[in-house]
Amino acid sequence: MPLFQRSLAELIGTFWLVLGGCGSAVLAAVFLHPEAGNLGIAFAGVALAFGLTVLTMAYAIGHISGCHLNPAVSVGLAVGGRFSFGDLPAYIIAQVLGAIAAAFVLLIIAGGHEGFTLAANSLAVNGYGDLSPGKYTMMAALVTEVVMTAMFLIIILGATDKAASAGFGGLAIGLGLTLIHLISIPVTNTSVNPARSTGPALVLFLNGQPAALGQVWLFWVAPIVGAVIGALLYGLISAGRKV
Amino acid sequence: MPLFQRSLAELIGTFWLVLGGCGSAVLAAVFLHPEAGNLGIAFAGVALAFGLTVLTMAYAIGHISGCHLNPAVSVGLAVGGRFSFGDLPAYIIAQVLGAIAAAFVLLIIAGGHEGFTLAANSLAVNGYGDLSPGKYTMMAALVTEVVMTAMFLIIILGATDKAASAGFGGLAIGLGLTLIHLISIPVTNTSVNPARSTGPALVLFLNGQPAALGQVWLFWVAPIVGAVIGALLYGLISAGRKV
Amino acid sequence: MPLFQRSLAELIGTFWLVLGGCGSAVLAAVFLHPEAGNLGIAFAGVALAFGLTVLTMAYAIGHISGCHLNPAVSVGLAVGGRFSFGDLPAYIIAQVLGAIAAAFVLLIIAGGHEGFTLAANSLAVNGYGDLSPGKYTMMAALVTEVVMTAMFLIIILGATDKAASAGFGGLAIGLGLTLIHLISIPVTNTSVNPARSTGPALVLFLNGQPAALGQVWLFWVAPIVGAVIGALLYGLISAGRKV
Amino acid sequence: MPLFQRSLAELIGTFWLVLGGCGSAVLAAVFLHPEAGNLGIAFAGVALAFGLTVLTMAYAIGHISGCHLNPAVSVGLAVGGRFSFGDLPAYIIAQVLGAIAAAFVLLIIAGGHEGFTLAANSLAVNGYGDLSPGKYTMMAALVTEVVMTAMFLIIILGATDKAASAGFGGLAIGLGLTLIHLISIPVTNTSVNPARSTGPALVLFLNGQPAALGQVWLFWVAPIVGAVIGALLYGLISAGRKV
Repeated sequence: MPLFQRSLAELIGTFWLVLGGCGSAVLAAVFLHPEAGNLGIAFAGVALAFGLTVLTMAYAIGHISGCHLNPAVSVGLAVGGRFSFGDLPAYIIAQVLGAIAAAFVLLIIAGGHEGFTLAANSLAVNGYGDLSPGKYTMMAALVTEVVMTAMFLIIILGATDKAASAGFGGLAIGLGLTLIHLISIPVTNTSVNPARSTGPALVLFLNGQPAALGQVWLFWVAPIVGAVIGALLYGLISAGRKV
Repeated sequence: MPLFQRSLAELIGTFWLVLGGCGSAVLAAVFLHPEAGNLGIAFAGVALAFGLTVLTMAYAIGHISGCHLNPAVSVGLAVGGRFSFGDLPAYIIAQVLGAIAAAFVLLIIAGGHEGFTLAANSLAVNGYGDLSPGKYTMMAALVTEVVMTAMFLIIILGATDKAASAGFGGLAIGLGLTLIHLISIPVTNTSVNPARSTGPALVLFLNGQPAALGQVWLFWVAPIVGAVIGALLYGLISAGRKV
Repeated sequence: MPLFQRSLAELIGTFWLVLGGCGSAVLAAVFLHPEAGNLGIAFAGVALAFGLTVLTMAYAIGHISGCHLNPAVSVGLAVGGRFSFGDLPAYIIAQVLGAIAAAFVLLIIAGGHEGFTLAANSLAVNGYGDLSPGKYTMMAALVTEVVMTAMFLIIILGATDKAASAGFGGLAIGLGLTLIHLISIPVTNTSVNPARSTGPALVLFLNGQPAALGQVWLFWVAPIVGAVIGALLYGLISAGRKV
Repeated sequence: MPLFQRSLAELIGTFWLVLGGCGSAVLAAVFLHPEAGNLGIAFAGVALAFGLTVLTMAYAIGHISGCHLNPAVSVGLAVGGRFSFGDLPAYIIAQVLGAIAAAFVLLIIAGGHEGFTLAANSLAVNGYGDLSPGKYTMMAALVTEVVMTAMFLIIILGATDKAASAGFGGLAIGLGLTLIHLISIPVTNTSVNPARSTGPALVLFLNGQPAALGQVWLFWVAPIVGAVIGALLYGLISAGRKV
């Protein structure tokens, strides 16, 4: 497929990842019922939503673009020899644009709810310290994002290995992202994806809430470092076999 | 297969979608335990139920009728070149009839519970403004339904593409509907399906609650517009490949 | 495979269905945390557990016995031409024995918890009226069990049809049982399975709680009637194709 | 593959099982929201997380090491004739080392949360009596761990049988572990895995909390006994067919 179509598929897919993942958190995590308490989907529902954005897109556009939806994944796949370094810029730009578009659409929908106002931690942004849901330190955030992304890449590289069960990659990778969220939402709101962090942070910045954008560096550095580590580890355990 | 059998399969499948999806919401979303609070399945359980109606039917009747269960999906598939425009009327009539039948059966079961009464927002009807679970505006409802249905069609067209992993379509499409509900139940109670909106609204109307039927136009217009947009977008990113 | 081995596989599988499904309800539905309220798995977790007992056994013993785990399913498959009427007695006896054994093991485990006592609705028995979790009438229970089992058989017959995607049957059928529980736990505690109803009811009876056993007739009649209806409906929509 | 690479894969996989499973329990089970109560993932989310660690690794490293991640599974597979007794020591050492490493990383992350302190039941250790989440007796714990591991082995041996649907093993086995947790977290915090029990218990011991390590014998004995029983039962129902 031409790079334009593949990049457009990445843009649409990353749009869906951020709209679905952050959207479920913003619109549906908390919904108070007068007698029954919270009927919203809480952290487990948000974790499922993030994973299902990737699962659905893996089967919908995997055959077009490979369905990375994540600059750290694209970098890790390039390091692992599965993706061209030359296509990285187009993919990463498309992923970030899709994430920004999703954050805008989410803002429009959320704004249709009476009493909606933006705060420093709105739109399900990622963060550490005061912006961490559980107020985890920067160091805990860094360790978490590096380790989670490293394991994510091992899952991606392994489940799409020619020796793995064909067709199940989308299932394993999507549910792998769900798992990562089940573990780490309280720490950083879970990124492992620089585009997913940048979209909401930029839209908040443009609406007078600059704090998250000031922390977005960590969500580029840690996932990319983790992705490279994961790619090297998978290379180590699979060496001697054809990839 | 003859059109009669395919249409009957669509009727049964849409019956299941509405009975299972709306039924789980009406019967099981809230169940108060004296000490433990709500043991009911809440929004996340309802989201799972809607998706599983489609997942189960996709494997049960997909080989008979294609398992659309949704007039917007049938229209989108026709626009995408995967379904005959000539079969649209029979499919849509069958889908709406199945949805109406399900709403009646649900009313019978729910009525077996002491103290059951019908209100304007009973039977898990879709709505905006006062009928939106979270009181979202008509504009937010419109944007949500258009975007969600557009993405739903991209998932459907992509996951059933000949280039996609065979067999996984039912999984991706069913869980895609779960994802859409995880995001948007608070906004419109989630439709993306004119038949699903019409069944409960009509049964409420026949029992003296006309408000939802007065809003049902939006849940025909927005999903169909979204489905056409989704079909065109998928055509754009997959053009040049055989569909 | 010889009938003895197939029947033993059915016994083990139905043991797992009742131990896993009823066990999750008895042991884990409610677990009170001093600050956070209920950490237990509630109805949605129980629904998932019941479905996963079938999903796991479908892949583990499906190639041995067909993995019915349910007298109504065995009858429906016989009516649908997929199973021998002559093997029905052995299968049904094995299924009921497995269910009884599971209820005993569950009683032993649950009894290891301080303050455990048996009541008329213990061990997750099925029931209507006073024994219905939501106090639904006998008529609502009857309609629910007939309709749910009919749809369950359509899922089973469709997903294991030679024209369906090979391998996905266990997934669709297991998650179909999850869906049925998401809808109907409040009505009857969900049976659609005479063996699952009989095991706990008999063990309660033997421990001085006879009420559930007095209602167990409904959970033989309704699921079997529903299974026959489902088998006939699937025959209707798939007629003319090779089964 | 050389034993070194297979063992390293087991180490990484068991690291993921303990970090993901115990990590989700420690970091995310409880998260209090001022109005909505607990937004954390509770027991059902932890059950899903444990299962998804195995599901993801099954597809990622199954083709490298077989993805046991569990000394009891390795023993059961050896008894069932699917794994070499000679490779047991290397696998078991790797699994335990991976579990210990995960418990250390989890301690580092959890320690990044203000007010974090270690108690006798921290790090999601397994236990009975006072260390059982629901204060179940040692006998109830023993029965539970033996039965659950026996059924786990039947699932594993059956779903990876050559006669089973190829590719679905990882799905059935991973979701089987989820099911086991849905049933038994209140009893023992669910082990069925000696390595998973040893890692957190040892790290607690090294930090002045020796109680869990004093109970770890049960979580070696019961799972291994259960695994052998499961392997023998599966041999019985599948005898006469080629394994």
